[in-house]
Amino acid sequence: MADERKSVREDGADAARRAGASPPFAFRVEARDPAGAARLGRLVTGHGEIETPVFMPVGTCGAVKAMPFPALWETGTRLILGNSYHLYLRPGHRLVAELGGLHRFQGWDGALLTDSAGFQVFSLAELNRVTEDGVQFRSHLDGSRHFFTPELSMEIQLALGSDIIMAFDHCLPGGASAGEVAAAVERTGRWARRCRDACGGGRVWRGGWERVLFAVVQGGTLAQERRRSAAELVGLDLAGYAIGGLSVGEPVPAMREMTELTAALLPAEKPRYLMGVGFPDDIIESVARGVDMFDCVLPTRMARNGTVLTRRGRLVVRNEAYARDESPLDPACGCPACRRHSRAYLRHLFQAREILGPVLATMHNLHWYQELMATLRAALRAERFGAVAAGLLADWRDGERQRREEIERGGPDAR
Amino acid sequence: MADERKSVREDGADAARRAGASPPFAFRVEARDPAGAARLGRLVTGHGEIETPVFMPVGTCGAVKAMPFPALWETGTRLILGNSYHLYLRPGHRLVAELGGLHRFQGWDGALLTDSAGFQVFSLAELNRVTEDGVQFRSHLDGSRHFFTPELSMEIQLALGSDIIMAFDHCLPGGASAGEVAAAVERTGRWARRCRDACGGGRVWRGGWERVLFAVVQGGTLAQERRRSAAELVGLDLAGYAIGGLSVGEPVPAMREMTELTAALLPAEKPRYLMGVGFPDDIIESVARGVDMFDCVLPTRMARNGTVLTRRGRLVVRNEAYARDESPLDPACGCPACRRHSRAYLRHLFQAREILGPVLATMHNLHWYQELMATLRAALRAERFGAVAAGLLADWRDGERQRREEIERGGPDAR
Repeated sequence: MADERKSVREDGADAARRAGASPPFAFRVEARDPAGAARLGRLVTGHGEIETPVFMPVGTCGAVKAMPFPALWETGTRLILGNSYHLYLRPGHRLVAELGGLHRFQGWDGALLTDSAGFQVFSLAELNRVTEDGVQFRSHLDGSRHFFTPELSMEIQLALGSDIIMAFDHCLPGGASAGEVAAAVERTGRWARRCRDACGGGRVWRGGWERVLFAVVQGGTLAQERRRSAAELVGLDLAGYAIGGLSVGEPVPAMREMTELTAALLPAEKPRYLMGVGFPDDIIESVARGVDMFDCVLPTRMARNGTVLTRRGRLVVRNEAYARDESPLDPACGCPACRRHSRAYLRHLFQAREILGPVLATMHNLHWYQELMATLRAALRAERFGAVAAGLLADWRDGERQRREEIERGGPDAR
Repeated sequence: MADERKSVREDGADAARRAGASPPFAFRVEARDPAGAARLGRLVTGHGEIETPVFMPVGTCGAVKAMPFPALWETGTRLILGNSYHLYLRPGHRLVAELGGLHRFQGWDGALLTDSAGFQVFSLAELNRVTEDGVQFRSHLDGSRHFFTPELSMEIQLALGSDIIMAFDHCLPGGASAGEVAAAVERTGRWARRCRDACGGGRVWRGGWERVLFAVVQGGTLAQERRRSAAELVGLDLAGYAIGGLSVGEPVPAMREMTELTAALLPAEKPRYLMGVGFPDDIIESVARGVDMFDCVLPTRMARNGTVLTRRGRLVVRNEAYARDESPLDPACGCPACRRHSRAYLRHLFQAREILGPVLATMHNLHWYQELMATLRAALRAERFGAVAAGLLADWRDGERQRREEIERGGPDAR
């Protein structure tokens, strides 16, 4: 019965994979901004090809919150992120494996990246003890005790069956001391080796597709530590690299500086992934600094709170100011919510606490993010990245500044 | 901008209505069960044609809970119900009128029936006083005072712009005395006249389409009162008639008897609508007794609680018993949830309190109800209603009996 479940894929990769003809993981840079570090690329995975720069919606716990998968596919999404920490706790990676892996369990035809659980262990769980072996913590769900190691992270991610596996790293909060940063960089390096060893040397062929390991560069906002971390991890010759430990409370200029510095230290021919970032302006600025991959809960989380994205910044559609506004969320948007519904209707749904409010706002925000990425890719292809990025940034910042001023004056978004 | 919002209609009724060529309301009986009272019919409205017997999903407050409108259209739904009480309180019928009426406000291309607010005033609101003039009550939302009259009910429904308007009736709870039932029948009659007078004699052409008034037969479980109520209301020569005051706690045999008796008293050439009913077996039994139209919150409300429908009765998919069940919710179903997802996945979504759980379960349950109605209509067309209805009833009752026995034994649905 389950084998007959229909696919929304149009490219035949599903059938190819079943026939054992799935391509190995690869990354190609297809164009570069002549005036900067931005690049257009293509990830080849066993679950389809993905154009970069790419934004990965976050499918925390087996679902991109409030999004039916066909609607997610229609936003142009071809790669999503799954959270190992959440899936390990519920429903459990062994259950997911038993039911055919995460792609099949959640009914997602595209590609999957899973995080290492490191970020959640260090930020969400009640932390008990970090040792060289791993991290002991208590679940945020029921207080139960768990011990996470690099090897367990690999076991979980291999069981989930993701196309891209993240190494288990030591992620520090913002404001850590230089000594703490140095120790975390060193531990992250040693743990990355253990992950590589537990993950077939960094590439594993299983279940009909290749799974590859990415390592995560740490180092806080210390240039010297970023250099040490990058040098050690690049030496492991993995399929891709992430920039971790940013967007954890540091000032924006420091985030930009560390992104630029770290991206430049990573191999030009391999994908670069900036973890957990961010707002549209953060994404544009980071693409300009050579980043290829992004994930962030912002579009989905903001949507559930009644905040939607427009070219001119955020719009808090649940506010009373929009009760009679017949225009769509974003006049330039072609998403299912904007094609059919007004701001006034969305405002009403949030007022009445109708589930359809978060559903439609999520559709809009993810469509909007993917349109942004498509615009950046088209600009790179046309060798117009600098001008297009500058225009998008100016509109976004203008709108956000105007919004702040209106809030101060008691305007629409203040009500 | 809003005028460019795209339609999901495929029959051109939207354009015809804009061109002023919308057809007047009509009902035609197209086939009858040779062995009983069931009939196949067609409602013609300014927002499309609807085949009967029809099930109307309930769009309480401007949305069929958790259902995007294109997904609702895909279930085969062409007529939905809106609750005047809820829309009057929030966002307010005047605001909806200002924004072009309820069809446009919520972005629904099909036809709309609105209830009179009577049922909610008598059941949900804090009731203060019923007089001949109307009902004074307090809002369940904020305790504010309101006075509802037949005239206000018509004002609200005309402002909302529904295709079918329900007369404001006096709806009693189950167990009312004979004297109370008689008084409510008489008041319902007088109020129906006032509704007719406030609604252009029962038919109003406004906004490019015709709106028609249906009256509601009351009388509790007293045959004599049902006869009195029906006789008086039929004398008003309205476009259609509803059977109200059932499924309010009376025994099932009494509900069936009153449905059969009342349906037979109503004009054969006009649509008959059994309000607020019900379970699949109630619907099949009532179609067999000559009912054409149904509404009920069951499929949507059950879905939000993690209960889904199958040919063999209800299935509580949030139960642990389904944690490893790879089959779809209903093996015979072709809805978006069953085509893509397993019971195990749905169970996980409800466990993790993911919004996608209610969304997918609602899609399934509404698809399932509309498939049931389509099956009944096809049987009527093929003159096989008796056999088809008997088969569906036997499967449903068998499954439900088995479920009760399993719960007693501590089986799947008990966990």
